[in-house]
Amino acid sequence: MHANYLGGSTMPRQIVLAARPSGWPAPDNFTLVEADSQPLEEGQIRVRNQFMSVDPYMRGRMNDVESYVPPFQIGQPLDGGAVGEVVESRSDAFSPGDLVLHGLGWRDEAVLDAARARKVAPIEGLPNSAFLAVLGMTSLTAYVGLLDMASFKEGDAVFISGAAGAVGSIAGQIAKLKGASRVVGSAGSAEKVEYLRSIGFDAAFNYKDAPVAEQLKDAAPDGIDVYFDNVGADHLEAAIGSLRNFGRVAMCGAIAVYNATEPPAAPRNLALAVGKRLTLRGFIVTDHMDRMTAMVTEISEWLREGKLSYQETVVDGLENAPEAFLGMLRGENTGKMIVRL
Amino acid sequence: MHANYLGGSTMPRQIVLAARPSGWPAPDNFTLVEADSQPLEEGQIRVRNQFMSVDPYMRGRMNDVESYVPPFQIGQPLDGGAVGEVVESRSDAFSPGDLVLHGLGWRDEAVLDAARARKVAPIEGLPNSAFLAVLGMTSLTAYVGLLDMASFKEGDAVFISGAAGAVGSIAGQIAKLKGASRVVGSAGSAEKVEYLRSIGFDAAFNYKDAPVAEQLKDAAPDGIDVYFDNVGADHLEAAIGSLRNFGRVAMCGAIAVYNATEPPAAPRNLALAVGKRLTLRGFIVTDHMDRMTAMVTEISEWLREGKLSYQETVVDGLENAPEAFLGMLRGENTGKMIVRL
Repeated sequence: MHANYLGGSTMPRQIVLAARPSGWPAPDNFTLVEADSQPLEEGQIRVRNQFMSVDPYMRGRMNDVESYVPPFQIGQPLDGGAVGEVVESRSDAFSPGDLVLHGLGWRDEAVLDAARARKVAPIEGLPNSAFLAVLGMTSLTAYVGLLDMASFKEGDAVFISGAAGAVGSIAGQIAKLKGASRVVGSAGSAEKVEYLRSIGFDAAFNYKDAPVAEQLKDAAPDGIDVYFDNVGADHLEAAIGSLRNFGRVAMCGAIAVYNATEPPAAPRNLALAVGKRLTLRGFIVTDHMDRMTAMVTEISEWLREGKLSYQETVVDGLENAPEAFLGMLRGENTGKMIVRL
Repeated sequence: MHANYLGGSTMPRQIVLAARPSGWPAPDNFTLVEADSQPLEEGQIRVRNQFMSVDPYMRGRMNDVESYVPPFQIGQPLDGGAVGEVVESRSDAFSPGDLVLHGLGWRDEAVLDAARARKVAPIEGLPNSAFLAVLGMTSLTAYVGLLDMASFKEGDAVFISGAAGAVGSIAGQIAKLKGASRVVGSAGSAEKVEYLRSIGFDAAFNYKDAPVAEQLKDAAPDGIDVYFDNVGADHLEAAIGSLRNFGRVAMCGAIAVYNATEPPAAPRNLALAVGKRLTLRGFIVTDHMDRMTAMVTEISEWLREGKLSYQETVVDGLENAPEAFLGMLRGENTGKMIVRL
């Protein structure tokens, strides 16, 4: 089975970290290498990856800083969410042909302990990439951030930055579906602003057009109750200015900061959090896997009913994964950025 | 009774806001005026104030900005916490001689609806000013901030800024009494640092001696779990840097910011809140009056047992209240700043 899959002489390829970026990463921070196919140990499975995820948090892992996930190592393959088909198994839990979700992306072929993979059932009408996005960590991030971290409740006015991104576009739709009084999104192009309106955002603006604080005040003149932060810095400052008393911020990411070489001077108005009684909560989705079932149940229902739409930007080929990652950091994707392998 | 109390010709005095400060307030922002004694309406009481409170939040009320409390008005008397004796009553709920706590400080004599006063019983061995501080809003602020906002739990390492102030010195002692693994305080003079050590802080430093971040790292080399913020800006930035995963910040005040004419550039590292899963919560003690009984019960017990010490800086005379307020903003008090009338 294994030899067959490899088609004889083809060696599995992977992307390794060639050098740590300072500021914005570039193609030469990555190298595509071929690697000997690893023999399976007892309890392991071999997976032919079909899709892999590129996500903003990976930028942080390229720095040599201990964080909630260990940093990538120079000369070692990158990793991240992936979905693929089991092609060889030395575990009773999996058989060849099974579709599995796991954490060894950035490579054609993954060898891992069976315990680190989760079997998923393909869903008619959805590509398998959905398990990386609308039925996976992307939607879980949106769901947990909005409902648990920001304690969203019916009637709240919500602002979402990076709203045309994978997480933001789902978060905004969940807010609408759960009775938000108003959902405002920011994004980085006119096309994305149009996309946000098309999926039900009440207002959307291009943050490059004018200061965020001004545009947010126009878009939500009565203020906001919840801010879902994917950007940080000036977006967060604008949100703090617009938040009403007892407002909540889910701090999901800070893409404005990831590639900065100087720390941002914003938000400069954080002291307003005292008088407004604001709560700001940073979170990492992997702490909240216990919410996966609830999320999948609700999101599946909305998908079936045609109430929730989602978009993927798909790039083909492992060799183009670094470019897909860089493009995602530059905001070239609408919805989830996916690499098809 | 009333005529007798006023001693014939003496008119009650009050401090009015003469002009709004820009940046640091100065004595000429205040005027001491005499006012006609107001006749009582049905349901009202007249109180001869014994002690009044000067607090950092009052600085915010001097700006013409709608906040959680309305701004002071130019030409109108200031107000704030006070304790005094009922000298005349047209309410069944109070009799002359009753000691009451109310919100009309900054004046010799207060006339108010009985519903806005709370009767308190003098406590042997404690001056009546205690109801403004160690058995009043000061301790309630410390109690709610530490226990409810920062969700302090046994074993936490705690950092408190403005620790020699009224709220900070109580917060630090509550943390120790409830089993903190380490309590670190910052203050603005060597004497205050010494005071903090004398009341049980494990470490204390003068923030003027060196950058806060450096001193905090030395004082809590393993990091902190809870930060009780009275200062904001660079203190908050240092705390965010030292907070461990799942750390909590009670945002109680931002005295570094109140008199600033430029917004502070700190904290510049707020994006760390995502990876560290930090929670920052701003709060206003008056939202939490339901916790008063629990606080008084615990604090009284500790006072009786000699486990909790507190200090007041007492200034005599209404005419010196503006100077007491300014001195408090400059950090000249240790413990609660009180004006005796």
